[in-house]
Amino acid sequence: MIVGIIGIGLIGGSLAISLKESGLASHVIGIDACQANLDKAVRRRLIDEDLPLGEALSACELIVLATPMDAMLTLLPDLLDRVGAQQTLVDVGSTKETLLELVKNHPNRGRFVACHPMAGTEFSGPEAAVPNLFTGKTCVIVDAQDSAPDAVDTAKRVFGSAGMRFTHLDRCAHDLHCAYVSHISHIASFALALTVLEKEKDEQRIFELASSGFGSTVRLAKSSADMWVPIFRQNRDHVLDVLDEHIEQLSRFRTQLIKRDFEGFHARIERANQIEKILK
Amino acid sequence: MIVGIIGIGLIGGSLAISLKESGLASHVIGIDACQANLDKAVRRRLIDEDLPLGEALSACELIVLATPMDAMLTLLPDLLDRVGAQQTLVDVGSTKETLLELVKNHPNRGRFVACHPMAGTEFSGPEAAVPNLFTGKTCVIVDAQDSAPDAVDTAKRVFGSAGMRFTHLDRCAHDLHCAYVSHISHIASFALALTVLEKEKDEQRIFELASSGFGSTVRLAKSSADMWVPIFRQNRDHVLDVLDEHIEQLSRFRTQLIKRDFEGFHARIERANQIEKILK
Repeated sequence: MIVGIIGIGLIGGSLAISLKESGLASHVIGIDACQANLDKAVRRRLIDEDLPLGEALSACELIVLATPMDAMLTLLPDLLDRVGAQQTLVDVGSTKETLLELVKNHPNRGRFVACHPMAGTEFSGPEAAVPNLFTGKTCVIVDAQDSAPDAVDTAKRVFGSAGMRFTHLDRCAHDLHCAYVSHISHIASFALALTVLEKEKDEQRIFELASSGFGSTVRLAKSSADMWVPIFRQNRDHVLDVLDEHIEQLSRFRTQLIKRDFEGFHARIERANQIEKILK
Repeated sequence: MIVGIIGIGLIGGSLAISLKESGLASHVIGIDACQANLDKAVRRRLIDEDLPLGEALSACELIVLATPMDAMLTLLPDLLDRVGAQQTLVDVGSTKETLLELVKNHPNRGRFVACHPMAGTEFSGPEAAVPNLFTGKTCVIVDAQDSAPDAVDTAKRVFGSAGMRFTHLDRCAHDLHCAYVSHISHIASFALALTVLEKEKDEQRIFELASSGFGSTVRLAKSSADMWVPIFRQNRDHVLDVLDEHIEQLSRFRTQLIKRDFEGFHARIERANQIEKILK
């Protein structure tokens, strides 16, 4: 299969590696607004060649949209205008409502399969691409009923060959659950980094005293603003909802400290410990 | 050296492994309020034998206090009453002001060295003990001027042989910096776990959709309440101070979302990204 990947960063690049390793892709074409990214991707042999979008589109059986979410809003309608009946488009985006509302009445909507591989790291760009990023992780297929069955089959072959399992959600449920489980973690981590940078003016102290626990909690704070701001913009309402809850939970700890209610504090930590059972 | 370790859990047990591996300890005696812990520690060969505190104290050149912080407040004054001029006491606790205020005028204060090895995991108990927990990490020696020079030398040999580097702080600075860099991470992580458990009633969804990013951010939420509540109790004022800042940082993200100020949001994420440079 000849595959075009638009946006050859962490996710696009890692998918290129997996598709080549599994043999599913015979040839991978990179398309990217940034020539430096394409050059890096060629040097790392993530892609076989880079082409302008128009040329790539006519050559590929599968096009993977792996840009930040704001660029997808422009790219997807344009791609659907030009996609052929034998071609499949998939995306790998973290929000779906805005994107799918935008194209819901497009005559070629069926050629597009909305996918969200729940995998990533805090790094970005083609230099961040790694093998086995997707192995054992979940790929959410969103509003699958709006896609042609053969297109869904292609999407499943693609992410299945990368080692993913599948779950199905509609676009509203997807954005809600992702706000709860993924997007809030990023905001919590960004805020924790800002807190420590604000309070701890002595950077050497952070370096010296930071244990692996702190490193783990602020890991996501290294994530790219260009990637994440469009996600928060498109999923604003759900993110606000869960952010309110998070501030409320922290405020309860604050109140318990002020009142010296350490018994209540203990009980809430034990409740938090329940997350271990679910994540196992 | 014959070493007694009071509290044979994650830290005490891991230190026992390191001291045996380096050859610094010829014999390790375990002392623990919980007989089941002692039995596990013997079965795992973390300790050579378990003894009641009184017997252990007369046999050991070095006693390591590795209990939760509340138990230390009772144990340390009692140990100082009984310690000999050739013996050394060290602790591994996460807060120092309360403990050191308590014993500052004790005639045997000099035999005690207040140490905080900045290492740990989210697990607890002797089953959580691991080799190399301390390697490459920082051990803070607190108020070293109040300890006898030979006792400080012994403490440095102990943690140095476990692969630690050293830094010095007074007790107030220690508790302040630990609130900033370590204690707030735990509260943030407990609160994030509670947030997700509250909002996401569908536990199967958490399991399916949780990526490694979420897992990393809530890792510390698995930490023991018995361990952490005494730390928050003893470091309440500094923790409240940094918790206020953390709630403020989250509230600013909230305001930016409400106002759709995504440019400001972007700038604050880029500021948060600075944590990467410091942690490298």
